[in-house]
Amino acid sequence: MREILITDVSLRDGIQSVLATRVRTDDMLYIIELLDKCGFWSLEVWGGATYDVCLRYLKEDPWERLRKFKDVAKNTRLEMLLRGQNIVGYRHYPDDVVEAFVKRAYDNGIEVFRIFDALNDVRNMRKAIQVAKSVGSTVKGVLSYTISPVHTVEYYVNIAKELVELGIDIISIKDQAGLLSPKVAYDLVSALKSEFPKYPVHLHTQTTADLAEMAQLKGVEAGVDMIDTAFYSLSCQTSHPPGETMIYVLREFGYKVSVDEKLYQKAGDVFREVRKKYSRYDVLPPYPDVGVLSHQVPGGMITNFISQLREQGMEDKLEQVLEEVKKVREDLGYPPLVTPTSQIVGSQAFLNVLHGERYKVVTKETKDYVKGLYGKPPAPIKEEIIKKILGEEETIYHIRPADLLEPEMEKIRQEALQAGARSEEDILSYALFPLVAKEFFEWREKFEKGQALLPELEEGIKEQERKEKVP
Amino acid sequence: MREILITDVSLRDGIQSVLATRVRTDDMLYIIELLDKCGFWSLEVWGGATYDVCLRYLKEDPWERLRKFKDVAKNTRLEMLLRGQNIVGYRHYPDDVVEAFVKRAYDNGIEVFRIFDALNDVRNMRKAIQVAKSVGSTVKGVLSYTISPVHTVEYYVNIAKELVELGIDIISIKDQAGLLSPKVAYDLVSALKSEFPKYPVHLHTQTTADLAEMAQLKGVEAGVDMIDTAFYSLSCQTSHPPGETMIYVLREFGYKVSVDEKLYQKAGDVFREVRKKYSRYDVLPPYPDVGVLSHQVPGGMITNFISQLREQGMEDKLEQVLEEVKKVREDLGYPPLVTPTSQIVGSQAFLNVLHGERYKVVTKETKDYVKGLYGKPPAPIKEEIIKKILGEEETIYHIRPADLLEPEMEKIRQEALQAGARSEEDILSYALFPLVAKEFFEWREKFEKGQALLPELEEGIKEQERKEKVP
Ligand SMILES: [Co+2]
Ligand SMILES: [Co+2]
Repeated sequence: MREILITDVSLRDGIQSVLATRVRTDDMLYIIELLDKCGFWSLEVWGGATYDVCLRYLKEDPWERLRKFKDVAKNTRLEMLLRGQNIVGYRHYPDDVVEAFVKRAYDNGIEVFRIFDALNDVRNMRKAIQVAKSVGSTVKGVLSYTISPVHTVEYYVNIAKELVELGIDIISIKDQAGLLSPKVAYDLVSALKSEFPKYPVHLHTQTTADLAEMAQLKGVEAGVDMIDTAFYSLSCQTSHPPGETMIYVLREFGYKVSVDEKLYQKAGDVFREVRKKYSRYDVLPPYPDVGVLSHQVPGGMITNFISQLREQGMEDKLEQVLEEVKKVREDLGYPPLVTPTSQIVGSQAFLNVLHGERYKVVTKETKDYVKGLYGKPPAPIKEEIIKKILGEEETIYHIRPADLLEPEMEKIRQEALQAGARSEEDILSYALFPLVAKEFFEWREKFEKGQALLPELEEGIKEQERKEKVP
Repeated sequence: MREILITDVSLRDGIQSVLATRVRTDDMLYIIELLDKCGFWSLEVWGGATYDVCLRYLKEDPWERLRKFKDVAKNTRLEMLLRGQNIVGYRHYPDDVVEAFVKRAYDNGIEVFRIFDALNDVRNMRKAIQVAKSVGSTVKGVLSYTISPVHTVEYYVNIAKELVELGIDIISIKDQAGLLSPKVAYDLVSALKSEFPKYPVHLHTQTTADLAEMAQLKGVEAGVDMIDTAFYSLSCQTSHPPGETMIYVLREFGYKVSVDEKLYQKAGDVFREVRKKYSRYDVLPPYPDVGVLSHQVPGGMITNFISQLREQGMEDKLEQVLEEVKKVREDLGYPPLVTPTSQIVGSQAFLNVLHGERYKVVTKETKDYVKGLYGKPPAPIKEEIIKKILGEEETIYHIRPADLLEPEMEKIRQEALQAGARSEEDILSYALFPLVAKEFFEWREKFEKGQALLPELEEGIKEQERKEKVP
C-alpha cells in the first residue's frame, strides 16, 4: 500500500491562479494553522508572483509574510517556488543575488525549494540548486512541461539526468499551462521512475484544461510519489485538483494518504468565506480552457490578441495570428507558451501579421531570446532565422546568461539603504525590484507615521471622493 | 481500437445544472445546428426539468421546442431524459398518460429515451420502457447511482438484469449527484460488461465533486461504450466533463472517437457568449462540492438547512441535522439524496432535530414514502420504523404505485380543452401540470393577441416602474 505525499499549494498557486495573488497575509494565517495540522508533506506558500505582488500592490513585506507563516506552521515544511536565475523576478540576476536570496529564504523559514527554468536550461537553475543544497534544504528540481516535437519523454529524462547530477532531491514535473494529458503523465512518470529509481517523482499540474485530475491519477498509477493539490474552494479553474477529491480517489484505489481530509475541507470552508472579500479579482470563467488542447495558446493570450487586433481594426486576423504563433514558436526552437516566452512569441507573431512580413520588425525581447540571453532554446533555431533576427550579431548559447552579469549586492547596497532599506531582506527586495521596493520603503515610512493608508483604503477614499463630485 | 460514442448533453443537463434550465429555444437553435454536424451518437435536448421550466417560467411550449430542434438536427438522434412513471413531473402518472406521452414524444422527434427511477424500482420504469420499445425507439435503461451499504455492484447488476428482461437496448449508469468514483466506475462497468456482454454500457456522471472525468476514464478502461459530455462553456461545476478534453484524452489512449472536436468547441464558443445573457442564473461556485464525498448531502441541501435552522435560531445544530440525515436515510432504506427523496429525508431529519424526538412529527411525504407510494425502498425498512411512522396502516410494496391510479387522459380531456388546450400535446401538458398549463394557455392566447409580453420583458417593465417611483 504505497503512500502518496501531498503538498498543498492553495495559498500560493491557488491564490495566484484564481485571485491574482491579491490575498493578504492576515487572511491566510488561520488557514495556515489548519493546514499545518493536516499532515501535508509541505505547504507551498511563497515565491512565484507573491513576492512582487506583496510589494507592489499589497504594500506588504513578503519576508514578514514568510516569518508570520513560519510562526504558525509548527509541523509542516514550508516550500517556495523559485524561478531559477530569475529568482522571483522577470530577468536573470547575478549569482551573488541568487545566493543571498536563497540563504535568506532558508533563514526565514523555507525548507523546500521548487526550482525551475521555463526553457529547461539547467545552467539557469544550477546556482539556486547549489545554494539550496548547501544550506541543507530540500530541492525539487523541475522539468517544465510543454508540448512540442522536441519536448519528448526522452528530452525530459535527459533534463532530469542533468538535475540529478546537480544534486536535487526530488524530480518535479511542472505543468503550468495544464497541458499534461493522462497518457503523457503515465509515460513520463514511468520513464522517470524507471531511469531514476532512487528519486521521488513529484507532479504539479494545473486544471486549466480539466486534465490535471486525470493526469494525477495516471501519474500515481505510473509511480508518482508526490502530488500538489488545493483545498476545494481554491481548486479547479486554472488552479489545481481539489485535494479532498484526490485523497478520496487515491484511498479507494488502496493508496495510503496521511492527510486529514476533514480538516483540509475545513480550511477550504474558512477560505470560501475569505474568497468573497476578493471578488473583484475573482473573474475567471468557471469552465475550462480547451483551446489550449489544439493550439496551446492560453485563453488570456488570445484575449490580448483580440484587443490588440481590435485596436488595429484587424479583428478578422485572429486565426492568422494564432497560426503565426505556431510558426514563430517553431522558429524560435519551441519555447513554452508561459511567461516570459509566451509574451515574446505572442508579440512577435502579432508584429509579423501586422507588418505582413515575417520578422520585418523584431522586438528587443525576440532578439535577446534568439541571441541566448534567456538561455539556450529547447531546440536549435535555424541559421536563416538567426540571421534575419540578429543580422551580424552572434548567438551566445555557449555562455550561461548569468555569467554576463556583474555581482550586484554590494553595488546596490548603499543605494538600497538610501532608498529606505533596513535589512538584508530589504536590500534583496531592492536588488530584485528597485523601483517597486523604493516605493514600498517610502510607503512603509509614511504608514508607520500614520501618514499613509493601506492601498484599498486609499482607493476607497478616492472612489468616495469621485462619487461625491458627481452632481 | 475501440470506438467510444458520445452523447452531448449541454442543452439539457448542461443548462439545467448550471443555468437553472432557463435558456430559451431561440438561443439554442444555431448551437444545435453545429452540434448536429459533430458526429454525436445522440443529443440529449429534452426532458428532465426543461418541460416544466418551459411552461412555467419561459412561457414556451416544450413540444414546439422539440419540433424546432428536430427541424434543425438532421443528422443526429435526439434524446430525452424521462423520469419513469413520473415522466417529466414530480408524481406518478397513470399508465395511459405515460403511454400517450412517450408516443407523442417519439412522434415529435425523440428517438432515444433515457429512462430512470430514483429508487431503481423497475416497476416504475416498466411502462415507459415498454411503450418506447413498441414505437421502435432506443431505450437507455438507467441504474440510478448512489452510495449506501445496499447499493453494491451486485445490487446494480440485479437491477440491470431486470431492465434487460424488459427489453432495454443500452445499460445506462446515471450518477446525478456526482458521487461515482473512478474505482467504483471501473468495478461497476467491469461487472456489467462481464454479465451483459451483448449490451452497450453508457455512463452519465456529473462533475459536482470533480470525480466525473476520472470516473469516465476508468469507466472506459473497464469497457464503457458511451459517455455523456458537454462543450466546455457548459462543462464542470455541477454539469459534465468537457467533451473537448475527454475526446483528446481518449484519442491519446488509442480509442476512436468520431466527433469533430473543433466544431464542438465552436459550439462552446458560441454558447460562451449566449451564457452572458443568463448571468442572473449563473450563480454556482466555480469550485467543486467536496462535502458530498463524506456525507453525500448536496451543497444546496446544506444551504437550505442553514436557512431553516437560522429561522429557528438553531444554527448550531447543523452538524446534528447532517447526522440525522444519515440516520433517517438509513431508516428509510437508503433512498438516494436526489429529488424528491432528498427533500423527504431532509425535511424529516430537520423535524426530528427540531422536535428533539425522532419521528415525533412526520411529514405526509415521509408517510407516503414509507407506505410505498413512491415505490419499493432500496433496502427494507425496519418494522419498528414502519410502525412509528404509519401506525396501523399497512405498507403496499407489493403494489406498483401506478396500479393505484385511474386512467386520466380521457378524464381531463374536456377540462384541458376548456383551459385552452389546442392539441394532444397541450392536453398532455395539462395532464402533467394542470395549473401551470392553464396559465400558459391563457398567456399564450393573450400573447398571440399582443396583450402579453415575454416574462422577462414584463419583469423589466415592472422593474423600471419601481425605479421611477423612487424619489
Ligand atoms: Co503552478
Ligand atoms: Co444528469
